[in-house]
Amino acid sequence: MATINRNYKRLAAGYLFPEIGRRTDEWEKKTGLKAMKLGIGNTTEPMSEIITDTLAAASYALAEGNGFKLKNPELETEDILLRDAKLDNYTGYGAEQGNEFLREQLVKFYLNIGVKLDSTEFFVSDGAKCDSGNIQSIFGLENIVAVQDPAYPVYVDTNVIAGRAGLFDNETGQYDGLVYMLCNEENGFMPSVPKDYTSEVIDGMGISERKGVDMIYLCSPNNPTSAVMTKDKIQEFVDYARENKAVIIFDSAYAAFIKDDNLPRSIYEIPGAKECAIEISSFSKYAGFTGVRAGWSIVPKDLVVEGTVPGEVHGLWNRRQCTFFNGASNIVQAGAIAALSNEGQKACMKQVNFYMDNAKIIREGLNEVGLKTFGGDNAPYIWMQTPNKMDSWNFFDKLLEETRVVGTPGSGFGPSGQGYFRLSAFGHRENVEQAVQSIKDNLRL
Amino acid sequence: MATINRNYKRLAAGYLFPEIGRRTDEWEKKTGLKAMKLGIGNTTEPMSEIITDTLAAASYALAEGNGFKLKNPELETEDILLRDAKLDNYTGYGAEQGNEFLREQLVKFYLNIGVKLDSTEFFVSDGAKCDSGNIQSIFGLENIVAVQDPAYPVYVDTNVIAGRAGLFDNETGQYDGLVYMLCNEENGFMPSVPKDYTSEVIDGMGISERKGVDMIYLCSPNNPTSAVMTKDKIQEFVDYARENKAVIIFDSAYAAFIKDDNLPRSIYEIPGAKECAIEISSFSKYAGFTGVRAGWSIVPKDLVVEGTVPGEVHGLWNRRQCTFFNGASNIVQAGAIAALSNEGQKACMKQVNFYMDNAKIIREGLNEVGLKTFGGDNAPYIWMQTPNKMDSWNFFDKLLEETRVVGTPGSGFGPSGQGYFRLSAFGHRENVEQAVQSIKDNLRL
Repeated sequence: MATINRNYKRLAAGYLFPEIGRRTDEWEKKTGLKAMKLGIGNTTEPMSEIITDTLAAASYALAEGNGFKLKNPELETEDILLRDAKLDNYTGYGAEQGNEFLREQLVKFYLNIGVKLDSTEFFVSDGAKCDSGNIQSIFGLENIVAVQDPAYPVYVDTNVIAGRAGLFDNETGQYDGLVYMLCNEENGFMPSVPKDYTSEVIDGMGISERKGVDMIYLCSPNNPTSAVMTKDKIQEFVDYARENKAVIIFDSAYAAFIKDDNLPRSIYEIPGAKECAIEISSFSKYAGFTGVRAGWSIVPKDLVVEGTVPGEVHGLWNRRQCTFFNGASNIVQAGAIAALSNEGQKACMKQVNFYMDNAKIIREGLNEVGLKTFGGDNAPYIWMQTPNKMDSWNFFDKLLEETRVVGTPGSGFGPSGQGYFRLSAFGHRENVEQAVQSIKDNLRL
Repeated sequence: MATINRNYKRLAAGYLFPEIGRRTDEWEKKTGLKAMKLGIGNTTEPMSEIITDTLAAASYALAEGNGFKLKNPELETEDILLRDAKLDNYTGYGAEQGNEFLREQLVKFYLNIGVKLDSTEFFVSDGAKCDSGNIQSIFGLENIVAVQDPAYPVYVDTNVIAGRAGLFDNETGQYDGLVYMLCNEENGFMPSVPKDYTSEVIDGMGISERKGVDMIYLCSPNNPTSAVMTKDKIQEFVDYARENKAVIIFDSAYAAFIKDDNLPRSIYEIPGAKECAIEISSFSKYAGFTGVRAGWSIVPKDLVVEGTVPGEVHGLWNRRQCTFFNGASNIVQAGAIAALSNEGQKACMKQVNFYMDNAKIIREGLNEVGLKTFGGDNAPYIWMQTPNKMDSWNFFDKLLEETRVVGTPGSGFGPSGQGYFRLSAFGHRENVEQAVQSIKDNLRL
């Protein structure tokens, strides 16, 4: 008699983005119209030649006798790069941790922002969503998890499924046992360390009380609010984590979008972070790899949690990846190397800037009709207040019906997202402009 | 105070294949010699042009205005195929479950062997290792897990990490709480349903006894023994599972290597299997995708376990994939479509046959010097008895030192693998021949 993992039954709703897709499809079928999608943070712009040419060359190299040869001879310097990466002929299984040459390029990428890491501390993956979801599995089920509210749903959902949460409370919109770090207009969407949070521990000695949290998820620049944590703010979390042997899981998937050089692009810019923080990041938004799939996680060897010595947590993640994962695609890793080359970085930053120009268009358009917005300056999302703090899903329906624009209900990111709405800056310029115009012309306020 | 998942501490050894790599590297450094590798089941032969050309075309299509265009115009029919798959321009996030056109090709692929499935029952992934590891997570921790002994280590290790096993017993080489289905020479390496296995249940009513197992991992053709389960044998398992609402996790990653048409290539060839079995399979060995990364899982909608209705387990796996995974790479999925095209299937089967010829060379070479072998006729592994049933790791060292050949110690697959050794038929012809010659010339028996 096999039984299911009953934690799945605790999940309050389907995964957010498929649900948006379902509602949009239904509306399109009903009306025969085409929706304008600013919902999912899905890259839309064709990739630069340097990356696609490298992906193609790595593909051809898998057949007999092709070697690694770029179509565009002006990109020939990359040829050397790929030979060093040993992707110039057929390869089977690679290292579970990723191509060594790619890991070295990631080391250099971080040196650009003054962060020194060892290549063995990097784990290349098929994307930050997978790493964000799987990282919790190397920690015990007894840990108290703190998440920003609102936050990317994967942090909450994967911990609910693992069994670190209790029942969902329809009243509060919160799961029992999870700690929600409020991010709202009043605190500039900046979380505070929940050091005074108390929970009950039941053991052989009876019931006792304990203070604080153990696993802290931070996302900066934040999805969905676009808020970027300052160095001082992150320092508070690092100090707390070191003092209490807590672990921070820091999602920096949107780091490339930060314009303000005073804001940190990696948690390792903050002193002491290597002892307490894991960083997860991605090629998805930086290089348009949402469909191509590549990301990375960093587990520093200095990292310690309760009862471990340096290197031990790093070893656990290594064991997890070796047991459940077989490395990212060799072709995709070649493309990731191209995205980190000098030419590649320039091309990727051009796209990043393009999306940020979209963000400006959306923000200014919404403000023109009197809608209140946040962010969109250091991250590709506009976080807006719904008119009269209307229910987020109701506003989803209203926006779709009146303007044909699809966005993401803020409540999908947590209870504090209620009355907010996320618009994504990922889109073709023409579509973004049309959507903004449609909101300006048709939204009944 | 974050704590680790202490189940990791129960793991008896590092993941098998990195351990072999480590020992081989060490030996190569020490001696300055190059080892001949028949250890890991890692494909070695360059891919056929139809697949690499498709992978490259899908890569170029991600840049502006390239469309989907194959280099070789003789393959132009594939052009149509790829347009139907909607991979002819830039794409971002795809469906977590995989490209719909690819899923339809998988349906057709199974129809070739008389198995009718719905495309929504297929989930495309980045490989069978990931699916084999993750599938257990949708089931409860209270389930009793049965594995073949010997078996692919991922089934055991992932269940140990999840918490379905007790301590490792050095004496028996078994984990407490796991059920080992013996596969040895006497039973033709065919497992039997452990229906009489009893375990203790402790609950509010005290201690009671219960019979049988809940989650059964089967791998056919088997890695490492090469044994293929007959239809009658699988029927026994299906009957048991249906009667007891147990679930079978059937790994058919080596199905393409079956020569004997009387042997089943999918568990769904067995009546009733859709009600109790999940199948996991892969492009890795069939199409040389070990480095490219693609596989699939099938969770039939008819499947039920204790307390569920049809569709519910399917829905759980769907939720798992949507929450922890973001779909396989769009480029890789294009390659998978090519591998399932008529031309692609021919090319892949040519490689399968090439590896099976290697298997014959290895088997016959070993037999010539009096070594006893099994398999290698319907699967690309030779399972051999070590001389005088010598310890598997000792034989690993002996073989490496005397002949420079690397193989895989049978004991790495479970206690019944002790005294056995696996040689892989994946290798360049010349290398395989050299390795066999070296064994014939240099192994001191």
